Amino acid sequence: MSTKAIRGTFLDFIDDPWKHVGDEHAATRFLVDGLLVIEDGIIKDFGPYDALADRWAELEVTEIRDRIIVPGFIDGHIHFPQTRVLGAYGEQLLPWLQKWVFPEERKYADREYAQAGAVRFFDNLLASGTTTIQAFTSSAPVCTEELFEEASRRNMRVIAGITAIDKNAPDWFTISPEEFYTAATEQIERYHGKGRNLYAITPRFAFGATKELLETCRRLKQENPDLWVHTHISENPAEIRGVLAIHDDCTDYLGMYEKYDLVGPKFTGGHGVWLSNDEFRRISDKGAAVTFCPCSNLYLGSGLFRLGRATDPEHRVKLTFGTDMGGGNRFSMLNVLEDAYKVGMLNNTILDGSIVPSEQDLAESERNKLSPFRAFWSITQGGAEALYIDEYVGNFDIGKEADFVALDWTAGPPANAWHASLLVEEGGPQTVEQAGELLFSIMMVSDERAVDETWVAGERLYKKA
Amino acid sequence: MSTKAIRGTFLDFIDDPWKHVGDEHAATRFLVDGLLVIEDGIIKDFGPYDALADRWAELEVTEIRDRIIVPGFIDGHIHFPQTRVLGAYGEQLLPWLQKWVFPEERKYADREYAQAGAVRFFDNLLASGTTTIQAFTSSAPVCTEELFEEASRRNMRVIAGITAIDKNAPDWFTISPEEFYTAATEQIERYHGKGRNLYAITPRFAFGATKELLETCRRLKQENPDLWVHTHISENPAEIRGVLAIHDDCTDYLGMYEKYDLVGPKFTGGHGVWLSNDEFRRISDKGAAVTFCPCSNLYLGSGLFRLGRATDPEHRVKLTFGTDMGGGNRFSMLNVLEDAYKVGMLNNTILDGSIVPSEQDLAESERNKLSPFRAFWSITQGGAEALYIDEYVGNFDIGKEADFVALDWTAGPPANAWHASLLVEEGGPQTVEQAGELLFSIMMVSDERAVDETWVAGERLYKKA
Repeated sequence: MSTKAIRGTFLDFIDDPWKHVGDEHAATRFLVDGLLVIEDGIIKDFGPYDALADRWAELEVTEIRDRIIVPGFIDGHIHFPQTRVLGAYGEQLLPWLQKWVFPEERKYADREYAQAGAVRFFDNLLASGTTTIQAFTSSAPVCTEELFEEASRRNMRVIAGITAIDKNAPDWFTISPEEFYTAATEQIERYHGKGRNLYAITPRFAFGATKELLETCRRLKQENPDLWVHTHISENPAEIRGVLAIHDDCTDYLGMYEKYDLVGPKFTGGHGVWLSNDEFRRISDKGAAVTFCPCSNLYLGSGLFRLGRATDPEHRVKLTFGTDMGGGNRFSMLNVLEDAYKVGMLNNTILDGSIVPSEQDLAESERNKLSPFRAFWSITQGGAEALYIDEYVGNFDIGKEADFVALDWTAGPPANAWHASLLVEEGGPQTVEQAGELLFSIMMVSDERAVDETWVAGERLYKKA
Repeated sequence: MSTKAIRGTFLDFIDDPWKHVGDEHAATRFLVDGLLVIEDGIIKDFGPYDALADRWAELEVTEIRDRIIVPGFIDGHIHFPQTRVLGAYGEQLLPWLQKWVFPEERKYADREYAQAGAVRFFDNLLASGTTTIQAFTSSAPVCTEELFEEASRRNMRVIAGITAIDKNAPDWFTISPEEFYTAATEQIERYHGKGRNLYAITPRFAFGATKELLETCRRLKQENPDLWVHTHISENPAEIRGVLAIHDDCTDYLGMYEKYDLVGPKFTGGHGVWLSNDEFRRISDKGAAVTFCPCSNLYLGSGLFRLGRATDPEHRVKLTFGTDMGGGNRFSMLNVLEDAYKVGMLNNTILDGSIVPSEQDLAESERNKLSPFRAFWSITQGGAEALYIDEYVGNFDIGKEADFVALDWTAGPPANAWHASLLVEEGGPQTVEQAGELLFSIMMVSDERAVDETWVAGERLYKKA
């Protein structure tokens, strides 16, 4: 049995800040001087150092100074085999897939390439402070295997599954529904629930799925009701029209997944840029989730996700945030927060009535403002709740797995340190307000350079050079 | 007389890539192995190494290997005294100014603070590859003085001027039209045309200007017709309504500057997000310029600049790109290109007819796609032409000032190097296509870390640690 303790300044979330408009601190837990006790990778105790020190007097304490320690980041939507092709030039979704993505992903049918790619992929994640992902792989079984193998070596919690496409892709890239069923069934047995691995039934997207493929997904979900379901939804206008042309018995994109009984808890649809109010309502009713991928939505020109609509208390939709790397051009969830803030502010202006008076909705406008509390909640506890993994990760509650990140608010582009000195005196943040301002600076002025240490299940797996 | 030569891989522009749709290479000059000869800071010769080597056989040659050397970046719109306050949380333009900006800018009335700020400001610029700026200062004369003094010490070409505001700001921040006239007149005499300094008549923005102040600007321009005029235009919907309420004899924002005879060559209006087609036409006819500040437009939620409309050959508007730091949250023009690409792609989707068929305009849609050639032209030669300083800077033509940047395509976030290895073999780019792909990677996957060396007037002022 290994027990250890970390002392430092901690910030995490005990509630959804969107439920506390005007008083977000009520959702936030901030310990200027806290102690986190870890036993075999699990949080054993957490609280103010002064209150806990006596109880754990015999333990050696690792002090992490001049940092804000937050829960590890959760990336709800990332494409493992696009690691090398991120930020490729020039197209909207559909032609970009054909030109850059499928040829690169094809390489992951080769075990050696997939293995080497997995090492780079997880190195990038850890350097970005990301400790949990929900990932797409490719249609080659090897690709998914190597993802799980490397995740297991690092003891990281991941959700993934062989990523099926049987339409609108080159022949050399598709997989038949039968092959998919066989490979998935074998992998579920081999990986699901082993260590920290969780398995997701993963039809790539409806534009790349025949009815037979979706029927196979339904069968897999019926046979394995505790599995996750991970896919894309309503990303790009041309894609949506294409989907409705294939699935001409459905009136909207969500309806197509509903038809195959896939929408419910543990279902995540990536993007959702063009979801209708009615689709938001049905997703909310069913306890399903949407992943907001702002870097990608801007990079591919998909559109502006309606953050303030998704967070409407009338039909609150569970949200994860995701890089969508390589449709997103950055690996870091801090860059995701930067672009999420920008999307939110564009929506904020659209909805404040200053452009078109009849479009004014001040409450929805306000919900688009991504405060640092809303932001960091979304990539920690909020993401965990949306993915139904909050029993494992998301905050520093006792019993959860000890995944966390130590953030250096002075690191980043050369401009950042002097900026941070405007927000906080020497000695670091003393109040939750100050911590919030530093977190905002980290997401808007800095980048993954702010990630100084990344810990997974109580082990430090990354320290910035 | 000091003469030196640089050998390396060079890329610059000899024409506007928007004029060469489908054949942008025609606008680009790419030398795999080039030689740049510099005499007293001025380009004396430039061409393929093989062709020039004999002519300059006696010169010692500095070899810059594994880099792409491009002209120094031009930031057409930046706020010197906002260096420390960049990326401050949470508001659209007008409340953000009151809460964060005016209190910080006020400090620059103190010479010591302004001096120290200027050192940091130029350090940040050079680390970002920016060698020329058109800058706002504050309403305190000291602030402008210290900007020019520090620029002179570094021999950098800057355009700036005391930044006048006499309305909609706290009393302690405004300047009267008389004080402005006196200070500007004194500074024009002292700085304009001295070394590489150029002076701009700088009414901050129409929302902060009485008619008397704009009348004073007109008088200054009449007395000094060779001066630049630098201001803001049509940034935010609420601001525009405010401007038209003050200047109720004008029907649009541009008309107000026109009324005071300020719009013509050497006039630049920052932002222009909400300019009408008619305003674009008048700006084009008059040879004036607009600065596209995408980081800021997203950060403050101002809106999406209509890049494809501004570049319509029917009424081509001269464009500079700018950080608008601190309304923009980044110092680096590479981040500006990242966000400019994203704004362009959002517009591209809006205009391709896939959302609303009646809004389809395929030519305008295409003009929104910021290829790497359009991008780097815009922050070098294109920016120089828009600011009417292309006789001095912008590309490697003989006779121009030797400002340039050596870019390392492998630097940046940890993901970048492997990505770059997909685009180019060992040995670097051999073709203009490969160079373009690397430049795109530098702007979308990397950031200011790609800037390895920055040279100003033939002297290396920055080398990455």
